[in-house]
Amino acid sequence: MFEILRKSTKSKARVGKLYTPHGVVNTPAFMPVGTQGTVKTMSPRELNEIGTEIILCNTYHLYLRPGHELIREAGGLHKFIGWDKPILTDSGGFQVFSLAHMRKVTDEGVEFTSHVDGSKHFLTPEKVLEIQTAFGSDIMMPLDECVPYPCGKKEAEEALMRTTEWARESKSEILNPKSETISKFQIPTLFGIVQGSTYKDLRKRSAEEIAAIDFPGYAIGGLSVGEPQEEMFGMLDIVTDVLPEEKPRHLMGVGYPSDILGAIKLGADLFDCVIPTRLARHGSFLNYEGKTSIRLAKFEKDFTPIDPECDCYTCKHFTKAYIRHLFWAREITAMHLLTLHNLRFYMRMMGLVSRDIQDGKI
Amino acid sequence: MFEILRKSTKSKARVGKLYTPHGVVNTPAFMPVGTQGTVKTMSPRELNEIGTEIILCNTYHLYLRPGHELIREAGGLHKFIGWDKPILTDSGGFQVFSLAHMRKVTDEGVEFTSHVDGSKHFLTPEKVLEIQTAFGSDIMMPLDECVPYPCGKKEAEEALMRTTEWARESKSEILNPKSETISKFQIPTLFGIVQGSTYKDLRKRSAEEIAAIDFPGYAIGGLSVGEPQEEMFGMLDIVTDVLPEEKPRHLMGVGYPSDILGAIKLGADLFDCVIPTRLARHGSFLNYEGKTSIRLAKFEKDFTPIDPECDCYTCKHFTKAYIRHLFWAREITAMHLLTLHNLRFYMRMMGLVSRDIQDGKI
Repeated sequence: MFEILRKSTKSKARVGKLYTPHGVVNTPAFMPVGTQGTVKTMSPRELNEIGTEIILCNTYHLYLRPGHELIREAGGLHKFIGWDKPILTDSGGFQVFSLAHMRKVTDEGVEFTSHVDGSKHFLTPEKVLEIQTAFGSDIMMPLDECVPYPCGKKEAEEALMRTTEWARESKSEILNPKSETISKFQIPTLFGIVQGSTYKDLRKRSAEEIAAIDFPGYAIGGLSVGEPQEEMFGMLDIVTDVLPEEKPRHLMGVGYPSDILGAIKLGADLFDCVIPTRLARHGSFLNYEGKTSIRLAKFEKDFTPIDPECDCYTCKHFTKAYIRHLFWAREITAMHLLTLHNLRFYMRMMGLVSRDIQDGKI
Repeated sequence: MFEILRKSTKSKARVGKLYTPHGVVNTPAFMPVGTQGTVKTMSPRELNEIGTEIILCNTYHLYLRPGHELIREAGGLHKFIGWDKPILTDSGGFQVFSLAHMRKVTDEGVEFTSHVDGSKHFLTPEKVLEIQTAFGSDIMMPLDECVPYPCGKKEAEEALMRTTEWARESKSEILNPKSETISKFQIPTLFGIVQGSTYKDLRKRSAEEIAAIDFPGYAIGGLSVGEPQEEMFGMLDIVTDVLPEEKPRHLMGVGYPSDILGAIKLGADLFDCVIPTRLARHGSFLNYEGKTSIRLAKFEKDFTPIDPECDCYTCKHFTKAYIRHLFWAREITAMHLLTLHNLRFYMRMMGLVSRDIQDGKI
């Protein structure tokens, strides 16, 4: 399912193609985040327009609302949300550990109360696969345990062990499903998730254990959760040295442009992050200098586009002065126009990096 | 500037073409409202897609924020907001009387404090034209005085007299501008505004006085402000009997589909209203049965479009169940998809009515 077209001679960077039931994804790829079944303020046709090849949706959110059974009845997540290209869904683990209340982790799974309505839920490795099978995700993730940063070594090691055990159970569930609902669908693509907090030996051990189970692709979780960038890069370096080179690697929840550029050089292929969309809703636009608030007084009479080099609808048609006005006037259109630009900025960045790898520059 | 293509033999309805510096408007026409320089949640290309030929922007809002001088510097309102088709701007009168605080009306104009920042302002007939000239509006309105409903006759008559006097001053300002900023621009199209509350004799008198001043088009203000529909129709009937038949008539702020259909039969050509956009943001969609909340439980598993007959992007790609989910999940996309549909519903309705008039059915 993954083909490497070009490997850098200067770094671990590579250019590849990821084949999924809903089409091909050119890597390195950035996945806009459609938390609740929509990339905030965007429509599917606009995602297509800016060059999106794959989006990420959150299992935790969609499981709680509208529920995986409803999505199954709708004909799957692609049909429900009107997006016919690939969808990767996460395991829900990260959200359970960051959003849900009163969670209780045991070897069987994790119990928690919903942040939406306070209802009680119990997610197990099997359940998480059943949910994602109902979605019809192109790439799904096994339940994992995310630890906060910083985290004591004992706690990190326990989470690692549980994550490995759950990965093993998930693989066996896929191969020999106990749950009837899974077997009705085609065998889905399940990635393994590497954890291990910021401990070098734990990261190495987790990567070895997960790689030994053998998955068609790997996700690296628990990074970009507050640790310094160098530490994140250090952990990633260890992990990509262990993971099989011929399989795709998803660095979950990362990040700012500099995080992504650095991670590509360390061998990561897939990225997802709410930064471009969230910053847009808070009024910031992105370019290679970083983020800038459109609300600044200096843009009051700035009748030039956010980025004259950018080919997005926003930059082709509107000025900073206008978007600033819309933002101060609390118009939703401001958030939309900024989201469109920020996502297109990420897409163009991925395209340029890919070209640089192919040209032997990275 | 107005050409009548077909007059009904069964009613006062007519089909026409309104020529403006930014293009032709087929009447009867509905103008989506771009209060602060954007039709809420919509981009100009989407307005084009649904068949919008003209939008209305609010002078009061744009004067307060971002200010007409800034819009002049941007190259005018069309360029500032990225909309190259016709724009009609109102006089600001209605908003001053409904939104502003501590207003004080004299024969010279109206003093008020801004609802945005509490700053003090004084709008005169000349000032209102200067503002709209800075915008470069295709059609502009003279300052008028709107009375609330119900309104005592004495108060209504005083407002009428002031409105007529201000219309006279506005016409003379256009012909022989005292303000330098007006003369720099092309001579704009100024409509006269008929007031008179819900008093038959006052409506007749106002229409006669305003028609005597002679404008290229007429607006009918102060209706659909709380009075019963029959009363609104009664007033409109009186006014359109008086106004010259060959000139376009704009029924300001109207309305629901049944208001518009009735008013077309009474000879109104132009309409603007926030109903389709506001209802959408509150979660309601429109069809010929009226408005319906997408939040209803019965739509939870309704995997059909809002209107299978509708050709809008929303109806072609998404189900009620999905939009309902987005609405409950507080996703902005829900408001956008409903706005797109509701506005397209209005546009299609105007098209059908126009065809029915041309076919001699209305």
